[in-house]
Amino acid sequence: MTNELRLGIAGLGTVGSGVLRILRDNAELIAARSGRRITPVAVSARDRSRDRGVNLDGLAWEDDPTALARRPDIDLFIEVMGGHEGAARASTEAALAAGKDVVSANKALLAHHGQALALAAESAGRVIRFEAAVAGGIPVIKALTEGLAANRITRVMGVMNGTCNYILTRMEETGQGYNVLFEECARLGYLEADPNLDVGGIDAGHKLSLLSAIAFGTQVDFANVEIEGITAITLDDIRHAGDMGFRIKLLGVAQMTGRGLEQRMSPCLVPAGSPLGQLQGGTNMVVLEGDAVGQIVLRGPGAGSGPTASAVMADVIDIARGIRLPTFGQPAATLRAARAARAAVAAPYYLRLSLQDKPGALAKVARVLGDAGISIDRMRQYGHDDTAAPVLIVTHKCTRTTLDEAIAGLAGTGVVEGPPVALRIEAV
Amino acid sequence: MTNELRLGIAGLGTVGSGVLRILRDNAELIAARSGRRITPVAVSARDRSRDRGVNLDGLAWEDDPTALARRPDIDLFIEVMGGHEGAARASTEAALAAGKDVVSANKALLAHHGQALALAAESAGRVIRFEAAVAGGIPVIKALTEGLAANRITRVMGVMNGTCNYILTRMEETGQGYNVLFEECARLGYLEADPNLDVGGIDAGHKLSLLSAIAFGTQVDFANVEIEGITAITLDDIRHAGDMGFRIKLLGVAQMTGRGLEQRMSPCLVPAGSPLGQLQGGTNMVVLEGDAVGQIVLRGPGAGSGPTASAVMADVIDIARGIRLPTFGQPAATLRAARAARAAVAAPYYLRLSLQDKPGALAKVARVLGDAGISIDRMRQYGHDDTAAPVLIVTHKCTRTTLDEAIAGLAGTGVVEGPPVALRIEAV
Repeated sequence: MTNELRLGIAGLGTVGSGVLRILRDNAELIAARSGRRITPVAVSARDRSRDRGVNLDGLAWEDDPTALARRPDIDLFIEVMGGHEGAARASTEAALAAGKDVVSANKALLAHHGQALALAAESAGRVIRFEAAVAGGIPVIKALTEGLAANRITRVMGVMNGTCNYILTRMEETGQGYNVLFEECARLGYLEADPNLDVGGIDAGHKLSLLSAIAFGTQVDFANVEIEGITAITLDDIRHAGDMGFRIKLLGVAQMTGRGLEQRMSPCLVPAGSPLGQLQGGTNMVVLEGDAVGQIVLRGPGAGSGPTASAVMADVIDIARGIRLPTFGQPAATLRAARAARAAVAAPYYLRLSLQDKPGALAKVARVLGDAGISIDRMRQYGHDDTAAPVLIVTHKCTRTTLDEAIAGLAGTGVVEGPPVALRIEAV
Repeated sequence: MTNELRLGIAGLGTVGSGVLRILRDNAELIAARSGRRITPVAVSARDRSRDRGVNLDGLAWEDDPTALARRPDIDLFIEVMGGHEGAARASTEAALAAGKDVVSANKALLAHHGQALALAAESAGRVIRFEAAVAGGIPVIKALTEGLAANRITRVMGVMNGTCNYILTRMEETGQGYNVLFEECARLGYLEADPNLDVGGIDAGHKLSLLSAIAFGTQVDFANVEIEGITAITLDDIRHAGDMGFRIKLLGVAQMTGRGLEQRMSPCLVPAGSPLGQLQGGTNMVVLEGDAVGQIVLRGPGAGSGPTASAVMADVIDIARGIRLPTFGQPAATLRAARAARAAVAAPYYLRLSLQDKPGALAKVARVLGDAGISIDRMRQYGHDDTAAPVLIVTHKCTRTTLDEAIAGLAGTGVVEGPPVALRIEAV
């Protein structure tokens, strides 16, 4: 066995130490499968003295990840620090410029700079792979880029933020409200340093934008992902949705429409009996739909040391085996600029509003919806013990634009209290 | 774009015509992704005159698939005829000997001759890929060989025969018996020419043996897959299992034990709420478990023209892109001969027996089980209107060997009518 592959690892948090653990525990097996020895030679992290539960003896240390990226004794640079600017960006660019292949778990970096990095990699004759950036241990980048490569992809969907799914699941299970469970996640260490990345849907939006680029042959277009977080979801919404046979999930959906690429990351109702509806807790799920294959569903751990490191190492082993693909599955220069189609795909919506207990109130709401061209599939008014009653409406298919116009109109009726909650019902 | 990849396709049934359809419909997209034009140039099938709904103009015709395999104007041979001897085997061997790469959908061929074919491919410097041979459109070979390559695989499970899952699902839904639904499948064309390949568990056993080889780095060992079909499952079994919160699935399980490799394909009880338990109809599901990643679940269509052709074409595109892996993920010479461990892994069992309505009958049964060292977790005796009562027993964990000894002992009690049905309860 010759031709050792030498790794530099920037970041020794959960993922980086997981990578070292796999390299230690499964060294023989990995060498047998890749036909080469894969060896970590140098690392970089913020705090050299911290005990990470893995042995760093024999590994060179660099305080500066960019210096690590340029070391002549590494062939492949692993970036598992995070952050879409600063050291992560600088070191990744430096690695490519220095002729190193790159494996990254950094969805934010790729969502913001994916096209530039893909071009840089190709002009340097290097590859940049990012299986760990989307849905943790699930090999979804590989399934989409390679496994479904013969398909015209028609839709990509995913529950890709475990923390949000954990909160929504626990709300249903325990009857506790969003704020209580948010605090529980904070205590359990389930939240990013900026929690809005999780509960605001941004982290999951980053991931969706990467899947879109591969699926539709378009340049990553994170700026045009319509993002809505889970912070407005109440226990009542979860109960009402349940009564109608649905569950609420923070669901990403990307599809190519006649008007362009629609990318949405928002809380949606999905049938409780569907694979997405049955996904409980912190697990991730991605649904891929293609013209030949139909529907493929992938389910697995979306975070954690072992699963994420498994995905990082899958990319490393690919490179060790000589598998060298363009970043988004085809040469970066051939990726089209995405034409964003916001609110293009019509769907039924769940609408919850608080209706004042006055004669004719419901008629006024119905008129506003009717005037906007929105027809009502079903409606429920719940019992109440104050002056306003919760009213649930499920509409027939309409676009979000039409719905938002109608919602604006509802404010003028004088019978609706506060802003209504509108959630898409996604056909899965 | 240079360096065209020229295909010869042997077999123009459901799969072969699906491949031609994808090549026609998605030619531009496939060329963009693989960086090469992929062109069918010659085909072979039994009946030249049959209308297959695809245009064969411009394609050379060979009556003999082996002649097709040797044509100097093809680079890659696609074998989608089926059968583990005869023309399928001869043409595949001829293709490798003639220096062609091979893509095969033929699980029987690979289950019986996988090691020899892998050696032949490597000595010829060619590859043989077989994504379509296991679980149709699900990219499971890729997920296991590449996506989970950094993991020590601990267990592989799968529902990989859609016809069996369709029958079991419809028995539950409709209350119709096995024989009625078997006839329905025959009418719908869901059965292989030899139906025992489906309902006898052989087809699914072939698939399991291929996954085992990749997962555990062992030579394909189909002969040691313990196979039991679904023909003995009754409506009562399905109802009783349901009463206890289980569903019955024809489930393949492969795991490496201290005593060697255990491979089983048999009807098992799985929790109704688990992903495997929720799998209804003809869909397939594969569960992969690794030391780093935990559990990954893949779900999708296990058969049909589009899905199977999608998998064939994924292999073709891999080869077009220069992805060249050993057949079972590592060089054939490094695969160890599998040491078969039959009945090694202990599990709880579901036992249904027909007990004569005599005083002391149940005590006799309990004594036989107790003497064999099998303890009872729960027991139910159902109402009855004749001289024998159905009795269900769920045992604590025991090996199949122990259980079979106890079952043999039950025959000697004189109170058990007919052979008991014993189904493993698999922890999923």
